[in-house]
Amino acid sequence: MTKVASVVGTGLIGGSVALALRRAGWTVTGTDVDPAVADQALESGVIDRIGIESDADLTIIAAPVGQIPELALTALESGSGPVTDVGSTKADICALVTSPRFVGGHPMAGSELDGLIGARAEMFDGAMWVLTPTTDTDEQAFAIVRAAVRAMGAETIALEPRVHDELVAQVSHVPHLTAAMLMVLADDTSVEHAALLRLAAGGFRDMTRISAGRPSIWPDICEANKTAITTGIDRLIEALADVRERVATGDRAGLLEMLEQAQAARINLPTGFGRADGLIELKIPIPDQPGEIAVIATLASELDVNIFDLELTHSGEGRRGVMVMVVDAEMAERFVGGLMARGYRPRSRVLD
Amino acid sequence: MTKVASVVGTGLIGGSVALALRRAGWTVTGTDVDPAVADQALESGVIDRIGIESDADLTIIAAPVGQIPELALTALESGSGPVTDVGSTKADICALVTSPRFVGGHPMAGSELDGLIGARAEMFDGAMWVLTPTTDTDEQAFAIVRAAVRAMGAETIALEPRVHDELVAQVSHVPHLTAAMLMVLADDTSVEHAALLRLAAGGFRDMTRISAGRPSIWPDICEANKTAITTGIDRLIEALADVRERVATGDRAGLLEMLEQAQAARINLPTGFGRADGLIELKIPIPDQPGEIAVIATLASELDVNIFDLELTHSGEGRRGVMVMVVDAEMAERFVGGLMARGYRPRSRVLD
Repeated sequence: MTKVASVVGTGLIGGSVALALRRAGWTVTGTDVDPAVADQALESGVIDRIGIESDADLTIIAAPVGQIPELALTALESGSGPVTDVGSTKADICALVTSPRFVGGHPMAGSELDGLIGARAEMFDGAMWVLTPTTDTDEQAFAIVRAAVRAMGAETIALEPRVHDELVAQVSHVPHLTAAMLMVLADDTSVEHAALLRLAAGGFRDMTRISAGRPSIWPDICEANKTAITTGIDRLIEALADVRERVATGDRAGLLEMLEQAQAARINLPTGFGRADGLIELKIPIPDQPGEIAVIATLASELDVNIFDLELTHSGEGRRGVMVMVVDAEMAERFVGGLMARGYRPRSRVLD
Repeated sequence: MTKVASVVGTGLIGGSVALALRRAGWTVTGTDVDPAVADQALESGVIDRIGIESDADLTIIAAPVGQIPELALTALESGSGPVTDVGSTKADICALVTSPRFVGGHPMAGSELDGLIGARAEMFDGAMWVLTPTTDTDEQAFAIVRAAVRAMGAETIALEPRVHDELVAQVSHVPHLTAAMLMVLADDTSVEHAALLRLAAGGFRDMTRISAGRPSIWPDICEANKTAITTGIDRLIEALADVRERVATGDRAGLLEMLEQAQAARINLPTGFGRADGLIELKIPIPDQPGEIAVIATLASELDVNIFDLELTHSGEGRRGVMVMVVDAEMAERFVGGLMARGYRPRSRVLD
């Protein structure tokens, strides 16, 4: 029998959930606070029909964090099946929505594009999707949510709501606020402001990139994850005070130790992909001309080299760049040979 | 008459200086603290001959920050022409090397590759090169250094040594130490450490990328730029305490204002290139398969679209990505049309 899901909110994530579940053979109905968005979801084939099924096998709340508790409680009252959500904080929501049929969730995907237009069935393929069952959670409900998430192509990880929020504060919320503060400080319109902007090179751009994201989602997130975020900022301030002390006192050995720990941890940070076969990082200096990237990417394609990660970085204000690629170790040697034959001078490093 | 330059230190930057000056018609001699490196520079055609000319038109000190003052003073004593350096801090060096014939310099380029093997004549094309004359600096010496830097393809900007150090602390040194601290905090090997690493997605990776760089250069930099770095950390700590307060007190309007300022500043941050004709940012969702990048880059090449910036980002742990490209506005429309004809769904945004 075909399984039925109802999606409350057919934007970027809700639309992708609908597409991913339909790809897995489910029938999906949906609504949106903006009826025009639901109409558009129906017209573009994202959902099978408009509406919420009271006997749906699963209801997914895909709304902004602040609206989730009320929408989840409504869905639990009007239906009989399990309900989950996709909010980026979990403790507040799980404290308010205490039904055994509710399982909190947070797919770690989809931040790059906004709205239904960005929705894709492949959104969650291989992505990490946190589920936050509590001691009250019904085992059957958890199993259904977990199976649906896996059917959408995601990997699941179960965490306590509070632990989820602490970890996300550390790897997402606090870094985001820190990037924003670096950017605000650089926005100080003093006499040398123009010079400062001219000197801001790749590292600064990398560090502040996320601050270009939509500001309007953050008041909700900061409110919902207040404790973990303030604790995270306190820890960062403490760490910065520590490194400041080492700089101020000229503690060269202490500084080096700290930076070596950071380097080792960064190099060991998993990439967005599994590393079963080992990966090689290549740095390829390229003059900035149309076609250089195509030559390199085409060569990779011809040699069947899968590009796991790719970034074009620039030297200061220069038009010359370095292409940083992460490729599978198996094919790296042939690829390097091909690059050298075409006049490139790649440097390679094994990522462990 | 052919101009002659002597380069003290034929590593990445010194080797590139030599190549760039030779490209501009200069004769270049050089030495290195490691004679084998100087030999290699000669053999690979980076320099014309080994040695320092006492009557060189210009001597460039391309050594680690801590060794520059002594090497510069030696060069000033043994020669009669202007002397410059390429150290990444300037106040300490310019305070110690007070000759009217010395002009401090700092090319904002070359951080990606290490050693002579990475040296290239094009290293400084379009790059920003800070010069730090003082009130004592001889005008003729400054003119010679400036002309040489321009001959190497760089743009020059003149700043007081102290101002240079403050700006570089803000856009490079403090962000670097902050990235390292975020990474050290994430390296806390508590019970949930493995989960944390699994949740660390693109934004965190962007922010901590620079902490993977060579730690050994930082004790020197932190020592030479102690005041500006400690001041910069103090300002960041103050800003973080401010945002923490807004989170703690639920000051939603205040948070939003801060994040909107950061967003506007980040969007207005100059890219590594001039923007004379306007640039378009394209976000192109792509499944992660060998060949996707090649198809897109080849299309760009065929349409003569210059790619100003390019990054492949991933959604969480997913194998699906979004290719973010910055291209010139003039050709963007045809490029978008070509992409759509090939089944991609790019979203574009004008960068102002």
